[in-house]
Amino acid sequence: MNLSQIKTPDDIRDLSFEECENLADDIRTKIIQTVSQNGGHLSSNLGIVEITLALHRVFHMPEDKIIFDVGHQTYAHKLLTGRFDQFSTLRTYGGLSGFPRKDESQYDIFEAGHASTAISAAVGFARARDARGEDHHVVAVVGDGALTGGMCYEALNDCGNNGTRLIVLLNDNEMSIAKNVGALSQHLSSLRASKKWNKARHNIKTRLANTPVIGKPLNKFIHATSTMAKSLLVSEGFFPALGFRYLGPIDGNDQQAIELILKKAKNLKEPVVIHCVTKKGYGYNKAEQLPEEFHGTSPFYLDGKHHASVQVKSNGEVAAEELIHLAETDKSVQVVTAAMPLGTGTHAFGKLYPGQFFDVGIAEEHAVTMCAGMAAGGLKPFFFVYSTFLQRGYDQVLHDVCIQKLPVTFMLDRAGISNEDGQSHQGLYDFAYLRHIPGMTILSPADENELRLTIRAAYECGSPCAIRYPKNVLALPEGYAIDQFHIGKWQELRSGRDAVILATGSMTSAALRVADMLKEAGVEMGVVNASTIKPLDANMLADVLGRKVPVFTMEEHMKAGGFGSAVLEFASAEKGEHDITLLGVEDVFVQHGDHAHLLKDVALDDESICLRILNHLGKDDKHNG
Amino acid sequence: MNLSQIKTPDDIRDLSFEECENLADDIRTKIIQTVSQNGGHLSSNLGIVEITLALHRVFHMPEDKIIFDVGHQTYAHKLLTGRFDQFSTLRTYGGLSGFPRKDESQYDIFEAGHASTAISAAVGFARARDARGEDHHVVAVVGDGALTGGMCYEALNDCGNNGTRLIVLLNDNEMSIAKNVGALSQHLSSLRASKKWNKARHNIKTRLANTPVIGKPLNKFIHATSTMAKSLLVSEGFFPALGFRYLGPIDGNDQQAIELILKKAKNLKEPVVIHCVTKKGYGYNKAEQLPEEFHGTSPFYLDGKHHASVQVKSNGEVAAEELIHLAETDKSVQVVTAAMPLGTGTHAFGKLYPGQFFDVGIAEEHAVTMCAGMAAGGLKPFFFVYSTFLQRGYDQVLHDVCIQKLPVTFMLDRAGISNEDGQSHQGLYDFAYLRHIPGMTILSPADENELRLTIRAAYECGSPCAIRYPKNVLALPEGYAIDQFHIGKWQELRSGRDAVILATGSMTSAALRVADMLKEAGVEMGVVNASTIKPLDANMLADVLGRKVPVFTMEEHMKAGGFGSAVLEFASAEKGEHDITLLGVEDVFVQHGDHAHLLKDVALDDESICLRILNHLGKDDKHNG
Repeated sequence: MNLSQIKTPDDIRDLSFEECENLADDIRTKIIQTVSQNGGHLSSNLGIVEITLALHRVFHMPEDKIIFDVGHQTYAHKLLTGRFDQFSTLRTYGGLSGFPRKDESQYDIFEAGHASTAISAAVGFARARDARGEDHHVVAVVGDGALTGGMCYEALNDCGNNGTRLIVLLNDNEMSIAKNVGALSQHLSSLRASKKWNKARHNIKTRLANTPVIGKPLNKFIHATSTMAKSLLVSEGFFPALGFRYLGPIDGNDQQAIELILKKAKNLKEPVVIHCVTKKGYGYNKAEQLPEEFHGTSPFYLDGKHHASVQVKSNGEVAAEELIHLAETDKSVQVVTAAMPLGTGTHAFGKLYPGQFFDVGIAEEHAVTMCAGMAAGGLKPFFFVYSTFLQRGYDQVLHDVCIQKLPVTFMLDRAGISNEDGQSHQGLYDFAYLRHIPGMTILSPADENELRLTIRAAYECGSPCAIRYPKNVLALPEGYAIDQFHIGKWQELRSGRDAVILATGSMTSAALRVADMLKEAGVEMGVVNASTIKPLDANMLADVLGRKVPVFTMEEHMKAGGFGSAVLEFASAEKGEHDITLLGVEDVFVQHGDHAHLLKDVALDDESICLRILNHLGKDDKHNG
Repeated sequence: MNLSQIKTPDDIRDLSFEECENLADDIRTKIIQTVSQNGGHLSSNLGIVEITLALHRVFHMPEDKIIFDVGHQTYAHKLLTGRFDQFSTLRTYGGLSGFPRKDESQYDIFEAGHASTAISAAVGFARARDARGEDHHVVAVVGDGALTGGMCYEALNDCGNNGTRLIVLLNDNEMSIAKNVGALSQHLSSLRASKKWNKARHNIKTRLANTPVIGKPLNKFIHATSTMAKSLLVSEGFFPALGFRYLGPIDGNDQQAIELILKKAKNLKEPVVIHCVTKKGYGYNKAEQLPEEFHGTSPFYLDGKHHASVQVKSNGEVAAEELIHLAETDKSVQVVTAAMPLGTGTHAFGKLYPGQFFDVGIAEEHAVTMCAGMAAGGLKPFFFVYSTFLQRGYDQVLHDVCIQKLPVTFMLDRAGISNEDGQSHQGLYDFAYLRHIPGMTILSPADENELRLTIRAAYECGSPCAIRYPKNVLALPEGYAIDQFHIGKWQELRSGRDAVILATGSMTSAALRVADMLKEAGVEMGVVNASTIKPLDANMLADVLGRKVPVFTMEEHMKAGGFGSAVLEFASAEKGEHDITLLGVEDVFVQHGDHAHLLKDVALDDESICLRILNHLGKDDKHNG
């Protein structure tokens, strides 16, 4: 059967294992082709093909509930649930999402972009099932990387205690995004290394090879092997301590072995963990060898090289470079990452200063409070984290860092619109979730040089600080450059008598371009680079408000509670009446796609901003004419 | 030696165990006396007296770093570190905090009010020690309740993996705030129940009884018992899986036993967990029998009865009552709490509908996403949680509930100024951390009846909703009552031509009182009850702004990003110029004390608001004269 013919999981239910193997090859080819074109998550999706096939053959979705943790491991799932034809649109504007989406398919029952949520969601589904007197299965598919997140433990602990019937399929590919971290991964290794595992694996392989595998004979086989399967149970260790029956380890790229163990688990009336060992990047040599590089990848050539266009230094790498300079003379400089040394650009720092570099795994809450402890102990930690993932540590930022005024710096990468990853990964909330916290300084540089300067400023300020920068290169139009920076001091990059734009971060360059465009329409706009969001530059702001011209704020952030909102709060306490217009993202979740399309969607592209400003100034006809 | 004479931990270092026992009695007496007067955390502080004495005798603070999880277990620590004389001011305005405070004492090295942070902080301190080439000890003191929080696991996992030298003292009193939840607590029980524990306990008791305990003889004894102590080690189970050496269990109310095991742990160069079993409320019968009631208690009579004044029904109880009504006809109504059935007032619901009631332990992240799963599975979960603790679940609210538009209702108790618990417990951030999330409805009722109505509205709305209410009774002045409520519809409770107050929640009654006071000063104020914060009532707001009179917003919340800020955002998009003044909490952490004092501190008491309004209207002289 050809992959393109599969419309629902029912179409694969009766395939032989050999046919499954061929299908797995087709799935991998399709995934590699598509990701090489569109970018995306490669390694994890290649590793989980057999598991996905097995889940859809053993269970019956959507009645049975299968929840994928960090939904970016669902490419095979999408291909098997009627989305082959659209698959080439993966992660493109208007195309398929790289994550589960309920509006794409009835087989996507729970959406997830952040890690470690699936077991909690599964516990909820299981409780809903029990409350409604239903009887289906609930399965959470979780990678060993996501298992470093504390939520998983909270969910296991609750579920195990109540004996809620649930299957956790642990996809252990011996790494999270980067190499595996955490003591638990060592515990998993020791389980993998045990003789029991090797022997059981051998037995299953051998016995399956000699066994008819469809219908009654399979049932008979399962019964016959139940004694052997029992020997896979481990009665001690991490999972049993949390009230879970442990099954495994099992070769997660061995179709027959997984289906066998899933059927076994299906019959148990208690919480079960199935430990599957898979190979990340399985079936694509380049990805097997460099799984982190192919974790989340830009488009690449099929010889494994990346397109030349993506070789530019990322903002994270620029920032890490600056910290390398600081660390040369100051041992107290520490860099912390939560499982993302490559994504955050800090791997080079880690190589140079391994003793000052900590990868704590996917564990943002711990990372923040550990930084608080480090700072209380006399160090200067810089936590590199995506804006969207620091949401996980909001309470810790407030409660552990800011109440104690500790000098921890948060390096917020992927701020603004996050492009292809979509709604779960937008960095559009950080001003709003940080700026009401007393004592927090928030910086938002406009170009690469200012990014470097803000890092120096954070290093020296001795109190909590967040620096926010986008994925895309930060650069100002020719003729503009920032060569000095002081916390709380804005800079007027361009003067103009008709109106003033207060812009921040990525929007400063846009504001300068817009000012050029508006000049052609006869409007003279001033542009202020508001690179400190907190504290605002009270002097400059009072000055600007005193000019009695319309003021526009521009930010790649939600309007609600953002930079513009802070400007309004300031202005409301100033004498006089003011005309301030906020340009930011309205109250909707921004989807996935390329940056240009998405900016246009939220009316923050240059053209839309021009029109909105002209409209506000009552000059839109002139522009159109 | 008398407790009042102890100025530093050095004063207790040479006491005999018998003297320690007497001192422990004195400490308990002082704690019981003070808490019966001032309210506070009783059970946990009574249980941990011997452990605190032992920590201060075996270690040398402040060089050695001892970090107390959920800092409310530090009363004995405060009494032993020079704060006996001020102890009667505990939790009062301007007095000692009920939590560690760096500005109180050099012995308070890390502040904590929320649970499960101490191990992360300790890992940070240990890494700072190692980076700076220092050699002191780092100890995290954690209750078994706090251990249900995922952060603890993240920290153990990271620490165990890196072999960072650290001691975790697990104070296992067999319950968190309410009765123990979570599979891990069963695991701890099984450790306690093991023969090994009983035997070891007996051995230590017997041998210690016959052993001189000071100086060299003790060292000799320790050496002699090292073989026995080794038998306490458990090589399997939860902690060893996370890379920790496990020591215990040990009787945590047995001074000699704890000191012995602490000295043993001190000499180990690896991560160690010491499992101490204590009795919550130890030494005070009433508290031993009713540990949850005496967890965080109002003032009480020493016969164990609470003062009559606190017998009023709490807002949480009112809310739970309403859900009891709804649950009568709808099995899909579910109530979830994170270890606080009493505090949130949901215990009665739990008794009536045990199958629809889930206490997940101190695990707010899991709670939120489990609710998301429940809702996706067809239920209507209501998560009762303090405003300050939902901060822990901010990412989950956004990522798991709101992106999927799931009908989960967050019942935010203790919103506004949290009184005696102080800066770590203020419910002053919720509007700001929720209102920028697309699809979230935020309700803030003004009296008890409106609270009931908002619950009905949330029940029917079919999408994410938060309802916010304070600890104090919600009641309007006589003559006012709310008898209808619709999401997004405000109500003008009083009209007045000179200015309008838009007030919300607890501030609506204040606004009505203020309007009365201002009437005497010749000012006619309108008062609008803005009980929906999101979405704003666009019609009413446009109407009010159209009146061209000064507008004041009043909220028991930070000014930054709060309700007033939302009003400004709305107004900035409206034609015309507006005079809007925000009355809320300025950019500082609010301390502890009684509500009246704290309101005055942040200038939100009736008198201050009157003066501020008169000042803004330019009529302050008239009022003063």
